[in-house]
Amino acid sequence: MKTTTEISTSPLMTSDQLLAHWQGHRQLTRRVIDAFPEKDLFHYSIGGMRPFGAMVNELLAIAVPGLKGIANGQWESLNEDIEVDENKPKLLGLWDQTTLDIDHWWAKLDPNGWQNTVLTFGQYEGTVLNSILYFIDNEIHHRGQGYVYLRSLGIEPPYFWEH
Amino acid sequence: MKTTTEISTSPLMTSDQLLAHWQGHRQLTRRVIDAFPEKDLFHYSIGGMRPFGAMVNELLAIAVPGLKGIANGQWESLNEDIEVDENKPKLLGLWDQTTLDIDHWWAKLDPNGWQNTVLTFGQYEGTVLNSILYFIDNEIHHRGQGYVYLRSLGIEPPYFWEH
Repeated sequence: MKTTTEISTSPLMTSDQLLAHWQGHRQLTRRVIDAFPEKDLFHYSIGGMRPFGAMVNELLAIAVPGLKGIANGQWESLNEDIEVDENKPKLLGLWDQTTLDIDHWWAKLDPNGWQNTVLTFGQYEGTVLNSILYFIDNEIHHRGQGYVYLRSLGIEPPYFWEH
Repeated sequence: MKTTTEISTSPLMTSDQLLAHWQGHRQLTRRVIDAFPEKDLFHYSIGGMRPFGAMVNELLAIAVPGLKGIANGQWESLNEDIEVDENKPKLLGLWDQTTLDIDHWWAKLDPNGWQNTVLTFGQYEGTVLNSILYFIDNEIHHRGQGYVYLRSLGIEPPYFWEH
């Protein structure tokens, strides 16, 4: 049963806006991936951290499996072993497929389920809202690290504001 | 006049949740600031980027002046020249004062104004929602950069998930 009540017609955020916010960030992340020379994308590292390509694999491993799990309640372990053969076009292709898949799975989320509790990947408990915010924040976090890698390589990163 | 309509009782996000989300991130950022040796906080840099302390000054320059501007419509230019005398306790003190001031100004935001358009600092146009999301995202972005600085200094940063 769908319960209703009188509240303001001006919600803080709609589902469409959160999706657009994420996809906007993902467009910027795509530009950051593309700014790396292929070799550096998969091998360059600072302070013993992962190369940016490995961080991008993590983002790919979270986005669609995460949304799909929230939508249908079925979870597999987080699998970051995505085979991209150290090939930047292949990684960008997976990124673009993920863009489409996010739209697909987003449409299947329960529009009234944002405050429900989920255990993402069988281990991280939170509301649906906080889980998805985490997916986005984790991307911003690692992309910020990619900016340092690029600067350290003498490459000008995309401007942060323009997404 | 406040208009009302029948919509779901399960909003995507409430104002209190967005505030808690930001303050949670700010707690983590505080731990990242505190993880830096004082000298490195104000002088260590990679790839010609700013020291982390200067990025933190930017975050301080945005948070309260940004919320205050949104709340009362009065804007001053962004002023990142915050005098902390290269003193970590002083910077952390300003961080903690900002925590209180954010709560104060948050309570003065128009609860129905999230979708209104604002020109933050007289130059960045967006909705109130997107402007505040930008404040938060910009913090996550720079904090991610701080993680690389710490790793490069051989210092283990706080775990990202625990905020």
